[in-house]
Amino acid sequence: MRVLILAAGLGKRMKSKYPKVVHKILGKPMINWVIDLAKYFGQVGVVLGHKADIVKAYVPSDVQIFIQEPQLGTGHAVMCARGFIDPKDDVLILYGDVPLLSVETVGRLVEMHKSSGNEVTVLTFVAEDPTGYGRILRKGEKIRIVEDKDASEEIRKINEVNSGIYVFSGSFLIENLDKLKNDNAQGEYYLTDLVGLASKTSTVKLDDPTEVLGVNDRAQLAYLESIARQKILKNLMLSGVTIVDPTSTFIGPDVKIGIDTVIHPFTIIEGKTTIGEDCEIGPFTHIVDCTIGNNVKIIRSEAEKSIIHDNVSVGPFARLREGTVLHENVKIGNFVETKKSVIGKNSKAQHLTYLGDATVGEDVNVGAGTITCNYDGYRKHPTYIGDGAFIGSNCSLVAPVKIGKGAITGAGSVITEDVPDDSLAIARARQVVKEGWAKRKREEMKNADHKE
Amino acid sequence: MRVLILAAGLGKRMKSKYPKVVHKILGKPMINWVIDLAKYFGQVGVVLGHKADIVKAYVPSDVQIFIQEPQLGTGHAVMCARGFIDPKDDVLILYGDVPLLSVETVGRLVEMHKSSGNEVTVLTFVAEDPTGYGRILRKGEKIRIVEDKDASEEIRKINEVNSGIYVFSGSFLIENLDKLKNDNAQGEYYLTDLVGLASKTSTVKLDDPTEVLGVNDRAQLAYLESIARQKILKNLMLSGVTIVDPTSTFIGPDVKIGIDTVIHPFTIIEGKTTIGEDCEIGPFTHIVDCTIGNNVKIIRSEAEKSIIHDNVSVGPFARLREGTVLHENVKIGNFVETKKSVIGKNSKAQHLTYLGDATVGEDVNVGAGTITCNYDGYRKHPTYIGDGAFIGSNCSLVAPVKIGKGAITGAGSVITEDVPDDSLAIARARQVVKEGWAKRKREEMKNADHKE
Amino acid sequence: MRVLILAAGLGKRMKSKYPKVVHKILGKPMINWVIDLAKYFGQVGVVLGHKADIVKAYVPSDVQIFIQEPQLGTGHAVMCARGFIDPKDDVLILYGDVPLLSVETVGRLVEMHKSSGNEVTVLTFVAEDPTGYGRILRKGEKIRIVEDKDASEEIRKINEVNSGIYVFSGSFLIENLDKLKNDNAQGEYYLTDLVGLASKTSTVKLDDPTEVLGVNDRAQLAYLESIARQKILKNLMLSGVTIVDPTSTFIGPDVKIGIDTVIHPFTIIEGKTTIGEDCEIGPFTHIVDCTIGNNVKIIRSEAEKSIIHDNVSVGPFARLREGTVLHENVKIGNFVETKKSVIGKNSKAQHLTYLGDATVGEDVNVGAGTITCNYDGYRKHPTYIGDGAFIGSNCSLVAPVKIGKGAITGAGSVITEDVPDDSLAIARARQVVKEGWAKRKREEMKNADHKE
Repeated sequence: MRVLILAAGLGKRMKSKYPKVVHKILGKPMINWVIDLAKYFGQVGVVLGHKADIVKAYVPSDVQIFIQEPQLGTGHAVMCARGFIDPKDDVLILYGDVPLLSVETVGRLVEMHKSSGNEVTVLTFVAEDPTGYGRILRKGEKIRIVEDKDASEEIRKINEVNSGIYVFSGSFLIENLDKLKNDNAQGEYYLTDLVGLASKTSTVKLDDPTEVLGVNDRAQLAYLESIARQKILKNLMLSGVTIVDPTSTFIGPDVKIGIDTVIHPFTIIEGKTTIGEDCEIGPFTHIVDCTIGNNVKIIRSEAEKSIIHDNVSVGPFARLREGTVLHENVKIGNFVETKKSVIGKNSKAQHLTYLGDATVGEDVNVGAGTITCNYDGYRKHPTYIGDGAFIGSNCSLVAPVKIGKGAITGAGSVITEDVPDDSLAIARARQVVKEGWAKRKREEMKNADHKE
Repeated sequence: MRVLILAAGLGKRMKSKYPKVVHKILGKPMINWVIDLAKYFGQVGVVLGHKADIVKAYVPSDVQIFIQEPQLGTGHAVMCARGFIDPKDDVLILYGDVPLLSVETVGRLVEMHKSSGNEVTVLTFVAEDPTGYGRILRKGEKIRIVEDKDASEEIRKINEVNSGIYVFSGSFLIENLDKLKNDNAQGEYYLTDLVGLASKTSTVKLDDPTEVLGVNDRAQLAYLESIARQKILKNLMLSGVTIVDPTSTFIGPDVKIGIDTVIHPFTIIEGKTTIGEDCEIGPFTHIVDCTIGNNVKIIRSEAEKSIIHDNVSVGPFARLREGTVLHENVKIGNFVETKKSVIGKNSKAQHLTYLGDATVGEDVNVGAGTITCNYDGYRKHPTYIGDGAFIGSNCSLVAPVKIGKGAITGAGSVITEDVPDDSLAIARARQVVKEGWAKRKREEMKNADHKE
Repeated sequence: MRVLILAAGLGKRMKSKYPKVVHKILGKPMINWVIDLAKYFGQVGVVLGHKADIVKAYVPSDVQIFIQEPQLGTGHAVMCARGFIDPKDDVLILYGDVPLLSVETVGRLVEMHKSSGNEVTVLTFVAEDPTGYGRILRKGEKIRIVEDKDASEEIRKINEVNSGIYVFSGSFLIENLDKLKNDNAQGEYYLTDLVGLASKTSTVKLDDPTEVLGVNDRAQLAYLESIARQKILKNLMLSGVTIVDPTSTFIGPDVKIGIDTVIHPFTIIEGKTTIGEDCEIGPFTHIVDCTIGNNVKIIRSEAEKSIIHDNVSVGPFARLREGTVLHENVKIGNFVETKKSVIGKNSKAQHLTYLGDATVGEDVNVGAGTITCNYDGYRKHPTYIGDGAFIGSNCSLVAPVKIGKGAITGAGSVITEDVPDDSLAIARARQVVKEGWAKRKREEMKNADHKE
């Protein structure tokens, strides 16, 4: 089967420099929601028009692109993709700005089309208020879609309406496409008119009409985002994840979470993130593209492209950047940043620390205020810290540098040379005390104030 | 025209030490919402009573203040402001605890009053449940307002009710104010009774009854705040700003945002903030009184009274305090604070840094852990860093101090004297290594543990 | 009176490794909500079954535990606790998964039971849709509960239904418990059947049906959490606390807050926290088990097990850990962590600081980047800082160490020995400048790049 996505529209009410279909729902452009759905069902083509160059950048290379210019209606859009239609294949029509349709619904539609053998199958739904929609008028096995403005009083009472989603048999489409006329007020060609030309039509009624909601402005965009979000959260809850407050929790469609994990409020989890069981995530946590084990706590932190093993604790106020790997039992505390760094089992960096391009062994204690000076203004350099080492507070480790196993660095030291195993390295001036100096200074300042 | 705001009430159900009208909606006291609205329409007066001294502090100097003491009803409030009424001017009556009325609605009311030439114009609305409201009873060009408790079964069915917002012609008000009587259960004078004395009355029906909601307790305060908020957000969305989650986004009434800017969840934008186009603001961001250019990212950060130019990236976990100016392409990273500091184009301060009273040139790299020691216990002093300088990690710059153009400071240095252009400044002790010391220490501690 | 809590159920739809009743509402396990309620009314027993060992850990020692194994219905559960029933005492039946019942409601039920002298008193409510509930059928002073599946068309129209919450007289219970039969489809013994055996029954009708909502899956868990939360917030608002946005505010059931305190969005307050008047808490603040005075500001911070006196300002981006005491007028600023530390009046630690195991006097200025090196890899040691001392920026205070009153430490110093009162202590290398070095280095690097 072939799937044709109509995405040529302008989206004027979005008030945007960018075409409507690249606006995002849960961080994913609308067009990609629809393309990902379409790929379940067959070979995919998209019809672009308005600002096609921008949209193209979002279309995967295995999707065929057709250009509709000017845009003269949905029927015209399909005409522009005539080369995509094969008389032997069915054609499913989807829309770039109708992103929430489920695989299950489309599956039912396709199934019905195949089993009925009819020329067209229409996805319909029962509208609470059908005003504005095309009504579904049945006459035996034939269906007619009567537009709201053309409907008689009697027909206007019908509340089963057209979603605009169809499956056509390819041969029917090819034979009838040219019969469409644009003798209407807008001078456009409408796909809807094809339904009336079919001798036998099937319908599938949608359970949840929110699936076919379209986006015309950014208030609707926000509304669809909230619907998509609540569906994901409900599925997670019913599968054994505790979401303390669904209202303030944002979880993307590709995130996997194990049972008995608790997601606290004000939490955003995005991308290809996997989280194990019995974790506590949040509050105030933002995770993107991470792999997280079991029994991990991540509180008020940012984590991106990181791998976090079991029993790790992160935060509050921590930031794990790309390439961070935290092995079992690691503790990363407040005001700590890691980047392209691997931290071994049981090691800790709990306060005011920057670990960049560092390889830290097991059972290491990284003191408060430790900074890996990984950048010399020209290149990044690595730091190695051996198992069981103790980095004193406020140390600067000037990379490239290697701290041996079991070594200690004195507080406040600037470590510029490698430290052998089991050694103490220290780099600081002796403390000098000037007795009474502070008192004299205070009096001096007071006198200065008097003179001013 | 003159606008008289009645704001003498007690607000007992607020359970507060402060008078009701100074409680805030979207960070702005209710009385100021009403005063700002009133100023669109003419000369403004307010009638204060309960805790008038506290309210006075919120009233701009060009608003006349009248005192109602004791508080004997709305009619009595107007009597207390008799000096404010001019027979030649119309008088619009507003209330200090009805903050959400729009300029458009009041404009329609005033327009109707002027065009009709009637003695009184009443703002009415259709209540879903009219119980408790005064019903609007029409007899030709006359109107009578029948209070709920006085209404017959028939009148109680009327669902058009009185909002309490009126425009009176000044001469009518002066002539009739003394005719008000307090022969009712409460012994108070009601403005409503004046409407019955008019021979000709106009009405304007409100489209959105939430505009005339009043605040009596803090649950209502929160509800009105949410209504005010959602109106602002909807306008922004329809004007081309993406609000990912309106539920967790707070934007003040005086904020301006350019098209295609995306506001992520958990974001608060307040005061006189202006934001350009194509920015990403949030999540977890709080901005007050800032001017922000185009294509700026501010993630999980605080920004107050700062100016941020195009293409700047801030956060996560950054704090821009008063007087910060970030020029184009600046990057401010995690655990970085700036205060009264100007940072030149392309410069970066990405980790664990405090820049206070600093002037930083272009293309400067401020290393992790840099601190401007701007306070000596008595005064604040400035730091200057020239174009292209490289500040090594963990440096303390003891102000007043100047780092020359293209200069470098060694990691961990305390810089107390000016550094010439293109020089290296270094202030640190040589590293000393004591081989085996750490091992001996460990054994010593183990033995000590054994003895304990 | 005695209170028996049935909590043996499996909770299969929770999809959890843990039994249903230990899942939490507002941070408190459901079983503890019910036990705490039960304790108001008498001696408490619980019937456990599924994963009883896990639940036991949550049951206080003064609550008797009975085991129901296998689980054959509510009647069988009571049979398993036969030893708990005393013919002289009434028995209140509650459920471990019905956590939101109020003391007031149960008080009314108990009161009715006592005053009526009847054998059973049933808590009923009017259901909007009674489908699925047992209907309350009255015949004089007798009541029959007709299960949904057994109800005639006529009875199905009754919308007063059974909540499952009963008070039985102890003697009635003992006499009738064995009359229960399990000749039903499930082969279980139902407590409901006992009601039919009573000659005289009273009922109490619930005002707010959400009080008897049960939890069967995690979506319901989240819903009950939101109901519990909104009740607490409404009570706080009506008592004089401003909650700017109830949707994004989480306050636990045991928190006390004084009037005119404002809680800003994105705030979580838990445990036994007490907050005074006129405070500003939030946004982005998380407080657990703290005692907070009047006029305190805590912005975007974490505070746990800390005591905060009047007029203190904390945050943004601060973390107060267990054992922190902040005296009047203290200021704790950004990227500052305190742990087991007492900070005296008027003292400040405003930037990038870690104070652990520290005792700080009054009027002390702790410079940016100060770190108490309280851990030597073996033990924690204390730091003392005297009144009026000035700690220069980027200092490391190597504990145990004492900084005298009025003493000053130079920026960037590692302080390893005690500093006498009024002295200056300094420990740093002299600054050395290598003129032109940076320029030569740049050229060298450029040449190196060329060769590569």
